[in-house]
Amino acid sequence: MTLFPAEATQREIARELYAHARDLPLISPHGHVDPALLADDEPFPDPARLFVVPDHYVTRMLASQGIPPARLGVPSIDGSEVETDGRAIWRLLAANWHLFRGTPSRLWIEKVFAEVFSIKKAFGTATADEIYDELSDRLAEPEFRPRALFTRFNIEVLATTESPIDDLSAHAKLAADGWGGPGGRVITTFRPDNLVDMEWAGWAERVAALGELTGQDVGTYPGFLAALRSRRELFIAAGATSSDHGHPTAATADLTDAEAAVLYRKGLGGATDARDAETFRAHMLVEFARMSLDDGLVMQLHPGSVRNHNTALYARHGRDVGGDIPSATEYVQALRPLLDRYGDDPRLRIVLYTLDETAFTRELAPLAGGYAALYLGAPWWFLDSPEGLRRFRETVTETAGFYNTAGFVDDTRAFCSIPARHDVARRVDAGFLARLVAEGRLPLDEAAETIADLAYHLPKKVFRLDGPAA
Amino acid sequence: MTLFPAEATQREIARELYAHARDLPLISPHGHVDPALLADDEPFPDPARLFVVPDHYVTRMLASQGIPPARLGVPSIDGSEVETDGRAIWRLLAANWHLFRGTPSRLWIEKVFAEVFSIKKAFGTATADEIYDELSDRLAEPEFRPRALFTRFNIEVLATTESPIDDLSAHAKLAADGWGGPGGRVITTFRPDNLVDMEWAGWAERVAALGELTGQDVGTYPGFLAALRSRRELFIAAGATSSDHGHPTAATADLTDAEAAVLYRKGLGGATDARDAETFRAHMLVEFARMSLDDGLVMQLHPGSVRNHNTALYARHGRDVGGDIPSATEYVQALRPLLDRYGDDPRLRIVLYTLDETAFTRELAPLAGGYAALYLGAPWWFLDSPEGLRRFRETVTETAGFYNTAGFVDDTRAFCSIPARHDVARRVDAGFLARLVAEGRLPLDEAAETIADLAYHLPKKVFRLDGPAA
Amino acid sequence: MTLFPAEATQREIARELYAHARDLPLISPHGHVDPALLADDEPFPDPARLFVVPDHYVTRMLASQGIPPARLGVPSIDGSEVETDGRAIWRLLAANWHLFRGTPSRLWIEKVFAEVFSIKKAFGTATADEIYDELSDRLAEPEFRPRALFTRFNIEVLATTESPIDDLSAHAKLAADGWGGPGGRVITTFRPDNLVDMEWAGWAERVAALGELTGQDVGTYPGFLAALRSRRELFIAAGATSSDHGHPTAATADLTDAEAAVLYRKGLGGATDARDAETFRAHMLVEFARMSLDDGLVMQLHPGSVRNHNTALYARHGRDVGGDIPSATEYVQALRPLLDRYGDDPRLRIVLYTLDETAFTRELAPLAGGYAALYLGAPWWFLDSPEGLRRFRETVTETAGFYNTAGFVDDTRAFCSIPARHDVARRVDAGFLARLVAEGRLPLDEAAETIADLAYHLPKKVFRLDGPAA
Repeated sequence: MTLFPAEATQREIARELYAHARDLPLISPHGHVDPALLADDEPFPDPARLFVVPDHYVTRMLASQGIPPARLGVPSIDGSEVETDGRAIWRLLAANWHLFRGTPSRLWIEKVFAEVFSIKKAFGTATADEIYDELSDRLAEPEFRPRALFTRFNIEVLATTESPIDDLSAHAKLAADGWGGPGGRVITTFRPDNLVDMEWAGWAERVAALGELTGQDVGTYPGFLAALRSRRELFIAAGATSSDHGHPTAATADLTDAEAAVLYRKGLGGATDARDAETFRAHMLVEFARMSLDDGLVMQLHPGSVRNHNTALYARHGRDVGGDIPSATEYVQALRPLLDRYGDDPRLRIVLYTLDETAFTRELAPLAGGYAALYLGAPWWFLDSPEGLRRFRETVTETAGFYNTAGFVDDTRAFCSIPARHDVARRVDAGFLARLVAEGRLPLDEAAETIADLAYHLPKKVFRLDGPAA
Repeated sequence: MTLFPAEATQREIARELYAHARDLPLISPHGHVDPALLADDEPFPDPARLFVVPDHYVTRMLASQGIPPARLGVPSIDGSEVETDGRAIWRLLAANWHLFRGTPSRLWIEKVFAEVFSIKKAFGTATADEIYDELSDRLAEPEFRPRALFTRFNIEVLATTESPIDDLSAHAKLAADGWGGPGGRVITTFRPDNLVDMEWAGWAERVAALGELTGQDVGTYPGFLAALRSRRELFIAAGATSSDHGHPTAATADLTDAEAAVLYRKGLGGATDARDAETFRAHMLVEFARMSLDDGLVMQLHPGSVRNHNTALYARHGRDVGGDIPSATEYVQALRPLLDRYGDDPRLRIVLYTLDETAFTRELAPLAGGYAALYLGAPWWFLDSPEGLRRFRETVTETAGFYNTAGFVDDTRAFCSIPARHDVARRVDAGFLARLVAEGRLPLDEAAETIADLAYHLPKKVFRLDGPAA
Repeated sequence: MTLFPAEATQREIARELYAHARDLPLISPHGHVDPALLADDEPFPDPARLFVVPDHYVTRMLASQGIPPARLGVPSIDGSEVETDGRAIWRLLAANWHLFRGTPSRLWIEKVFAEVFSIKKAFGTATADEIYDELSDRLAEPEFRPRALFTRFNIEVLATTESPIDDLSAHAKLAADGWGGPGGRVITTFRPDNLVDMEWAGWAERVAALGELTGQDVGTYPGFLAALRSRRELFIAAGATSSDHGHPTAATADLTDAEAAVLYRKGLGGATDARDAETFRAHMLVEFARMSLDDGLVMQLHPGSVRNHNTALYARHGRDVGGDIPSATEYVQALRPLLDRYGDDPRLRIVLYTLDETAFTRELAPLAGGYAALYLGAPWWFLDSPEGLRRFRETVTETAGFYNTAGFVDDTRAFCSIPARHDVARRVDAGFLARLVAEGRLPLDEAAETIADLAYHLPKKVFRLDGPAA
């Protein structure tokens, strides 16, 4: 995998540019690795449980060809049986490996095989068992434990994602071991979705838990805000430099305290409808922006995913197993209340993501290229792929430049794939910059500086990983 | 026309890959050729009536520059006069041939001239008469009759499209001649739009005709369903392996029988409004999916065309003369009722088309890459072009892979253009795969297997042209 | 800057094609240069006031990184202080020049430095003062006055844009000097937005001014129409060949005179709401089409910009300082009333622009490729860039061809950037056509004819700059 343009002039330039980025440490400011993985530093389980079971990119694709997640060992929540034999799962993947031609999953997995586990053979039915055995052997060795890999991967900082009611115990252990806390290698991210989304089953219970955890009177809206603020402080103490907000839409609303309190009380009373819930989520984004201006957390907003679209899958396996689908997402009117309030304030940093590419030239690049508070997040999820990354640069750069983008985020649960994902992004950026150079649109020395900025300096700065906030 | 990438490395690979697909038989599972053409096997009329009059790609473009369809011989329905001199029509085309620079119409027509009719000269005003004469001569020869061309074109199977109230007499004749029926060379497709769209003028009359044809009591909703089921049986006996559904939107609805019966009765009573009609169409898609689970017909859904947008054109020339315009099309919420019911069932096959490219990465690839019942249809109509085909692969492959796509469909009325259209698709796929190979994203041997699958094996399988449906 | 494809075959062809367009005179049928600039022919002010202060592409980008427009000398309307030191502004630009990497602003400005002002040094902090001085020196020389540059730039005709209540005095002076009037070098464009948009503050006052200017009784709707018609006559006498309409949406409406009169009276009485205002604007587009059929003005429609999105910026600096953001724009239903009435009439010419690229393949190319009255305008504003121009050709050509497009418009306030902008468009078109040639989709001789048409002959013809309107 070079991923560089095939054309010789650009290929040479891309190779040269890539050399400026290849060995820079990895900044991973947004991801979903389980912090216990690094806190406990236990060996990984078998190959199927490392590469298949938790990877919804993989289980989705197999489901799309009629292989149900239960046959792939995806845990059920309805008591139905699931495959437990790792080797059987592995053989299913191998027998269907052709489905992944042209997908980033294939690139990532083959790269991990080759570069992390030194597997020399091509994966497929004929080699499945052999590779399973090789991987199993490696996983038993100490240098394949999570912390050893973390060091070998040259990760400078990795952010995980936790709810405000998480007890952060894994992060406490990491800090105790010298791996966590402010400026540490493994940090947390404040993700309050399940506390601001009244439509999410169990909301009131989680709010109550928040009250217990903080000693605040969450029966009132001011108490709710105080509780969130106090959790933010603890998250910052556990290294957090950003918050993360995954809403159905990008709607923001700037309510008065009194208006917000009415919605909050209705929510606690179980009397809200979908519109109230949307307004409350929208308002809380402005509230969180206000908190960010005080405590410096960078806000990340990624709207536009229809969660749990596959009803049967959700009923059987629950959330986050591949049943989410993007939908058209509007930003220009949606963000206006927030931007009217704080959009020109350069102390605030809001990183915007999208699953709707049409917003790149039409909405996101003009917004990020006009408001001091806005940055564009990396292509996300279905767009985190060679073509998606390329189109991102082609569509946003001319209006927003490079320096209103926030750098690559791997957004992954799959710890071993982190270097592969960053490497793909660095290669694609090298190819894009090489084209600018070859077409006489950017001098080579500036392109070289730019790729290092994109790969390392820019995410570090935008996500405030370069020191205390102001 | 090579259509291969200009860059030498990719060009060589593309050429090699294309060689694996070039001579494979043509699978044409979705088109609009008149079956009488092959049933009667009469010579084609003059060149203008072959290349201009029935081709709304051509007449649209000339209309866009102020040449009304009447001057091109397009039949009128309002009694107004139209040009009848084939040579005059032909000269008009020649005089405006520059309008077609960069369009697929030009590629197809020039390819047909060169490869089907061995015309050596470049088309234009200076050569128009000469080429008209040459074509006229050829058309009179027996080897230019439809069946001879069918064989020469290496078409393995061609599906035409008929309404359930079509008497299928052309297909009966084809079967009698050894050309039709299940597994035959020319088969039909079940297209019930004009029986489920209450807003289409004459709906009740067509429903009555359906009743007469089947002996069912179509005064009741169960009778209507029974009548449709019985026509499906006869269509399957005439070789059909798929149904085709061209709706204004992708809306689906899962009504109870009682609810559907209410709408149906309102419709027969002439008391429906636009909303009822939309709900009924939406519900019928779920109904047809249910039937497909019984009888195995593959469902094709192509929504999002605003029919007869050009009011004056419609008034003068009627439907299907180039007056339709695409519009933004939503799939994620629209398909949910159908997918909730049957989306995970791999026995069902639904091929989704779009005229709205924005849905490719955002909606269609994630849906097809997640639901067992869904496949992505080829770029349709305005998107059936070198750039459209290329963007299709670039935008859907990374999320849906190649094997959730259903293969190329030519969708054409223009029989002689069928090989040209398939060849364009094969060349563009070769170019896309060559890029993957050149960038190290796919080994050459797998790319070679993939292009043969895309060109031949995959459409044959997805459209159940490889034998009886389970 | 070559902007040609890096691949050698295409590059050579592109270079050859570009040679056919490079030296053709510039046709600039749509722009926002102040006509007083050419009427008065005074020297330009200092470099900062030439390159930074009035260029909202530049001030937006700097604002997006926290540098407020006041620090860049952008005039305030609220009395707040702004930077007045040209050199200080210039240094700010230099210190942030990296923000413009990959943007067209950088290409344009560097090209102007090099080609208009013969600056040899690369711009940046180290050279800022030196270049400021060099530019200042040049600006004092007679050959850098506007009219001298106009001649040197090889501009054949430049259209500026005025409101119907503009007194056209600058154009009168130009005509007196032999530079203006019908067929002249500098002409006007009829832009009535501020007289048809009842929501625009001061509407009634401007209507009253129109009445005074024309002696018509604008208290009645027929009087209002008569006043507009009489201003159109005067604009045509000042050389206008087109009108320009910048509406929030593409909505059109075909009201009766009585219905329109009701809305008009409500508007004058201050009793309209947003919906009335939208309907009135929509109707006026049909009204203007009717006038165009009489007087021959080409209509330009560019919808879909959310004006003054940045509320704080608007409050401090007013309109047209970079606070507008695109939004999703629908054309298919919106234009239907207008097209139903006049869409097939080739005497009418409507040039459609968009800020929403998704409309190119889905809506605009099919519309322009089907209606005689429609042409596609050049990529506008955020899309006027190498990638934007390339995507425009890639997405519209296959359905609309080249000859339903209207040629490049520079749309600029920045007089000195006009040649650079046209040159970028010519280079990108050369690159696109070179790909068609290299892929065997268009013969070289036809590509050569096409590029000359796109660069010169087509805009001249579509905008009726080739003589009196029939």
